[in-house]
Amino acid sequence: MRILGLDPGLATVGFAVVDSDKGRLSYVSCGTINTPAHTSLSERLNQIYADLEELFTAFAPDVVSIEELFFDKNITTGIAVAHARGVMLLAAVRRGLPVYEYTPMQVKQAVVGYGLAEKRQVIDMTRRLLRMSAPPKPDDAADAVALAICHARSVTSLLAEKGGAACSTI
Amino acid sequence: MRILGLDPGLATVGFAVVDSDKGRLSYVSCGTINTPAHTSLSERLNQIYADLEELFTAFAPDVVSIEELFFDKNITTGIAVAHARGVMLLAAVRRGLPVYEYTPMQVKQAVVGYGLAEKRQVIDMTRRLLRMSAPPKPDDAADAVALAICHARSVTSLLAEKGGAACSTI
Repeated sequence: MRILGLDPGLATVGFAVVDSDKGRLSYVSCGTINTPAHTSLSERLNQIYADLEELFTAFAPDVVSIEELFFDKNITTGIAVAHARGVMLLAAVRRGLPVYEYTPMQVKQAVVGYGLAEKRQVIDMTRRLLRMSAPPKPDDAADAVALAICHARSVTSLLAEKGGAACSTI
Repeated sequence: MRILGLDPGLATVGFAVVDSDKGRLSYVSCGTINTPAHTSLSERLNQIYADLEELFTAFAPDVVSIEELFFDKNITTGIAVAHARGVMLLAAVRRGLPVYEYTPMQVKQAVVGYGLAEKRQVIDMTRRLLRMSAPPKPDDAADAVALAICHARSVTSLLAEKGGAACSTI
């Protein structure tokens, strides 16, 4: 199973491609989509959509794992990210890809085994799990790698336990 | 100029088609796109996108006028609406349509001449301006009609004044 992890954003979208074969994880690629601040909101959304279509074509993922939005402080940023996330979900569904969402706490739990782990611990564990020589960069791409791993482990755990709560399509 | 007014939402999107010819307004159509609550967020976004594409084809608007989002209370609803609004902006830009956004206060100012007007006053004035025998229904469609009128009047005002602040693409 090839998983595309997506860390939603308007200025920067993190993405990561990870293969999971019977629980064994392999790193394929990661990076970011960046939209220029001086362009209109519509154009930035259009770029995110078009770039995601290119990623789908280039890597042919089987499934998308995306971070759930939760905002309690900067509502303006939250609204902007939600615009972008809507476009990201649309791109996936129009490509026929199932989409799963996870909270940051679920990601930490799945990757480090502790829902309140530090960001540094998460990045270090993703590097080890994927046998990478250096940690994935930048942070948005690293978050996307963790999201992909989270889905791989949730699915494996679900298959083993025949049940569980973390994994549901949106 | 044919204007498509859009009142963003996830469960209900209001739309309205209004023609403006040298300041004279003509009502063409209005209605709502409704997405079932029991379907996934991705599917609801996909339906909104597909239905908007149909509206673009059916009515061939020249421009889209959409409400600006502003949330200070229900953040959960705000995030859901922002997902939908992102998809609506994407649909417009992919069709090559310019998009203009207006706050509820700008709409009231443009339609009634008073930024703090009651909803009832706005609906009654839209009916009169468009010489409709009955007020547009439901409320989401009526809001979209007001948004279309707002853009028509902002553009007319801009042309007359060769300047102004209300009208800008997003």
